[in-house]
Amino acid sequence: MSNSDINKIPLGKLLFERLSKVTKSVFGVPGDFNLRLLEQIYEVPELEWVGNNNELNAAYTADGYSRINPHNFSCLITTYGVGELSALNGIAGAFAENVSVLHIVGSSALRARAVADDGNEMDALFGTVHHLVPGKHTFRQDHDVYRKAAEAYSCYSESITEEDILQGTVQDKIDGAIEAVVANHKPGYLFVPSDVAERLVTCDLNKPLDLYKYKSKNLNDNEKKVLNLLLDKVYKSENPGFVADYFLKRHTSEVIDLLEKTNWDCYSTPASRGLCLDETLENFKGVFCNEKSPKGVFESIKKHDLVLHFGSKINETSFRYSGKNEEINNWLATQDICFLGRDFAMIGFKKELIKNISGCKVFNRFLEVLDYSKIQKIIKSKAEQSRGQLYSDSYKLGEMVMQEDRLFEQEVSYELSKNILQKGDIMLCEMSSFAFELENIKLPSEGRIICQSFYASIGYALPATVGVCKALKDYNMNNRVLLLQGDGSAQMTLQELSLFLKYDLNPMILMMNNSGYTIERAIIGATSSYNDLTAEWDWQKMLEAFGDSNKDKHETFRIGNYDELKTYISEKGTKPLDKLHMVELILDKFDYGNGLLVFLGKKSADEAM
Amino acid sequence: MSNSDINKIPLGKLLFERLSKVTKSVFGVPGDFNLRLLEQIYEVPELEWVGNNNELNAAYTADGYSRINPHNFSCLITTYGVGELSALNGIAGAFAENVSVLHIVGSSALRARAVADDGNEMDALFGTVHHLVPGKHTFRQDHDVYRKAAEAYSCYSESITEEDILQGTVQDKIDGAIEAVVANHKPGYLFVPSDVAERLVTCDLNKPLDLYKYKSKNLNDNEKKVLNLLLDKVYKSENPGFVADYFLKRHTSEVIDLLEKTNWDCYSTPASRGLCLDETLENFKGVFCNEKSPKGVFESIKKHDLVLHFGSKINETSFRYSGKNEEINNWLATQDICFLGRDFAMIGFKKELIKNISGCKVFNRFLEVLDYSKIQKIIKSKAEQSRGQLYSDSYKLGEMVMQEDRLFEQEVSYELSKNILQKGDIMLCEMSSFAFELENIKLPSEGRIICQSFYASIGYALPATVGVCKALKDYNMNNRVLLLQGDGSAQMTLQELSLFLKYDLNPMILMMNNSGYTIERAIIGATSSYNDLTAEWDWQKMLEAFGDSNKDKHETFRIGNYDELKTYISEKGTKPLDKLHMVELILDKFDYGNGLLVFLGKKSADEAM
Repeated sequence: MSNSDINKIPLGKLLFERLSKVTKSVFGVPGDFNLRLLEQIYEVPELEWVGNNNELNAAYTADGYSRINPHNFSCLITTYGVGELSALNGIAGAFAENVSVLHIVGSSALRARAVADDGNEMDALFGTVHHLVPGKHTFRQDHDVYRKAAEAYSCYSESITEEDILQGTVQDKIDGAIEAVVANHKPGYLFVPSDVAERLVTCDLNKPLDLYKYKSKNLNDNEKKVLNLLLDKVYKSENPGFVADYFLKRHTSEVIDLLEKTNWDCYSTPASRGLCLDETLENFKGVFCNEKSPKGVFESIKKHDLVLHFGSKINETSFRYSGKNEEINNWLATQDICFLGRDFAMIGFKKELIKNISGCKVFNRFLEVLDYSKIQKIIKSKAEQSRGQLYSDSYKLGEMVMQEDRLFEQEVSYELSKNILQKGDIMLCEMSSFAFELENIKLPSEGRIICQSFYASIGYALPATVGVCKALKDYNMNNRVLLLQGDGSAQMTLQELSLFLKYDLNPMILMMNNSGYTIERAIIGATSSYNDLTAEWDWQKMLEAFGDSNKDKHETFRIGNYDELKTYISEKGTKPLDKLHMVELILDKFDYGNGLLVFLGKKSADEAM
Repeated sequence: MSNSDINKIPLGKLLFERLSKVTKSVFGVPGDFNLRLLEQIYEVPELEWVGNNNELNAAYTADGYSRINPHNFSCLITTYGVGELSALNGIAGAFAENVSVLHIVGSSALRARAVADDGNEMDALFGTVHHLVPGKHTFRQDHDVYRKAAEAYSCYSESITEEDILQGTVQDKIDGAIEAVVANHKPGYLFVPSDVAERLVTCDLNKPLDLYKYKSKNLNDNEKKVLNLLLDKVYKSENPGFVADYFLKRHTSEVIDLLEKTNWDCYSTPASRGLCLDETLENFKGVFCNEKSPKGVFESIKKHDLVLHFGSKINETSFRYSGKNEEINNWLATQDICFLGRDFAMIGFKKELIKNISGCKVFNRFLEVLDYSKIQKIIKSKAEQSRGQLYSDSYKLGEMVMQEDRLFEQEVSYELSKNILQKGDIMLCEMSSFAFELENIKLPSEGRIICQSFYASIGYALPATVGVCKALKDYNMNNRVLLLQGDGSAQMTLQELSLFLKYDLNPMILMMNNSGYTIERAIIGATSSYNDLTAEWDWQKMLEAFGDSNKDKHETFRIGNYDELKTYISEKGTKPLDKLHMVELILDKFDYGNGLLVFLGKKSADEAM
């Protein structure tokens, strides 16, 4: 070791030291291009390697972890090409849904790159690197081909170079990657060539990470303009309604404080449920998602002279707007509504768009300067006060004919709202027919719903549940975790069940066995064979096959009617979970919920009431 | 229906009609953007929909199918974004390994595209399409973002447009896609917007597909030059050696005929085993892969005054060249060797490169014009004749100490060569420590080995085996199929086991249970936790969990020592398979084969002899 190396540490160790500031678990799959890097993780005992079964599952798991991690961060490590491409769909999902995930890829060696760049074409032909596709019109392989494929799904993309190592800029790239994914709520990429993990590099381990750049005090002109517009409107309004959307997620306690002080009616959105406010607040009025809102919620929001839609994450599922609903069109055209998104504000629906702002910065300042004495006191009638949350009561259970030999999705939904869900429960829901019922499920205090409803990649929820459970365990939180899983989507990512066993994670898995893709049967092809499953899997035996043959770590339940469901609830369903519960719910394959039929336009919201 | 529609058929039906000319199964996963298309498959009874558990598995399955399908073709259908991205790694693998797979994607509706292209930015914000990632720097979504991501891995990429429907060019695009993937040995893409499957389009169902464009008789100047050079060298040579590599795969019977007439010594390569010649030919001398060749094979090939390396697929694993082996370097520098690849020829190693040719066309003409009377008769000594195939005998079983409580990989390898493999057997091998033993395994007549050794995406082999079995069944071939599977790689794509059950496919699965990523332990991290598995899966129960609880369709075996292996072989292992055999082989996690250690440079080829 030369003198100049005294304060240097191996590059891989530096990477893991920095990661340990913002996470406790690192997900992924080993491969020959990342093995030397992975060896270094053992140098940083604060970090735990969590090996997934495949890379797509690793990306989903990381997504779930990031949503719970107090540092709003997660990391997965894959190998060149074969690994990183497999993960790509999961990364695109995190991009679409705004989740901070750092994807570290063990890429081709610096020395292999040098051959590809400097050699002649015949050298290139005989010097190919495995895992790397051949060039399309040349014998040269493009070592950046995979990096380019990920560009559209990342807010940061850098590769460690020889210059970084020589000039001491490795830590800048590592810190930059972590800071970018956190600040932008988006995935980012860091490529680590397979031959650099042991190189010694300069570092400053005590340098703080600058994760929340939007906390800076200086507003630009656009931000000032938005702030003043909002304050002005708020002071003039007699009865504002406040929609707390996804990008307020790092301001939850401030939001709750604001709503308690102002007594404004408030709403969550499908993307923000339990994330940005507590749905047991007295002034909480339900889940607002424009056209898709339960009828009562729409009736409520119409009464406000001002709607503050803050933290806005606008997309097809969280703010459904088809342009075809005349009642909604008329309302939007005349409603004083202000959107404050991550990077834009809009004053009036499709009226004035203001870009080049940080919504979080504006919101921070809004809270700082808001003069509560100028806010008009809201007088509510007793009837309004007592009405409480306006979930649509589409489950007219009293009117339903219970069937002794059958279980209905509506019964499950009803019991979740009324009996199963407990304070602090986190419920993940797979994109399934059931996902369209979520707006009607009542959340308990500190409860939360996670559903990838816009990107909507089925298979997401099971591995994401692994990540959620692992983050809770890592950060000593003891919330229960429930997973509402369809059997069709469970096929996609099934093997990740085994991680619950390996890491002693104990979710309640409500496996809705409805023999196929019921959500798609409702769209088209109700009886077409492509909506059937590959086989009748035995959910009672599955976790035994995954290694828990003595049922030390899991219990199984098979529920075929409402009575059996009620028995499970009274005996087990409301208690802390000390084993994984595999609760198989036998449902009919044509058991479409009202929510799904309304969404598809096959039933009107009025009929569903 | 207007008069002009009389001869039109729905676009989806047209697509499936054309596909039915070149395949009997269509793989994939349904999704809301492809459902209307999938509905049309039932209009074409010659085609069967095979639903996979996820899209990556579908791509691997299609890859396997294409390798067996006499039409050299396969097809998978996925949905927009969430589906097609999941499949991307499998498509990149087919691109790297030169397999003809058509990937049809149900993409966003033409009318949604029109909104994105024509509306203003605020319209775009409120008109997002689910499954589609948001734009990076604009509220507009890029409807072609996924198509761009696949560009580097496809030889054809077209989307059906309104103009195609109006102008009658839909069939051109469909036929073009099929013809391109077959002719180029590469994957291709056809994007079908979700709202066009039922549109009526003109068609000519009797038009023949032009699949083998290289059969055209006209050689260009480069091709003529290459042909003349080759003929000249062949007539002058006293003892040519013929290496039949991958791209001769559509000329197998011609190659065998040539070798029988000329009596030239011949060799296969890792990519062509059993594909381009029969390894039981008397003049077959073993598997040639340059530096990685078994020692005896290299000794044999050195003796030729001319080496014809035809059908060349040059990459790191099929023609290993590090530049560091002096003996090889000297040999290559002086050897008269001619490469004839898919699209290039090279005369002398790294000497004269000739591009812009079709290797298949040249080879076709070569066979037509070859004057056997001008070829010098090869006189072989009796010793040479009797020596036969030069597999390295690295399994000195006589010298090995059998252990009653343990099974060794070498014992499995030995028994495969000597006893298990039967005429016509197709053996798939996962990229695993065992894959490095393949060059030493002796193939029976009409036997074949399939291993994705260059792209090397672990998890490939299990779904590919589904595809291989399905193609054999579809085309009434009754070859046995063996899958050598590592337990680490089986994790990746496990769920596709259930397809064997659903479609009554009966491979022999040799599940090498060595408790983790043994291939990677050999590289680095022998005892590191990242090379361990997620749990101890129970391979005896797995297929029961996947629905065959009464073992109607499968048998399980658990083999822990050599005697048990021999019992299995004598009772079951050489017979036709009427059920799936799950044969669990309990191996030590540090049981590295010689082939792997030689490949990694941890043992020399001489030591391994």
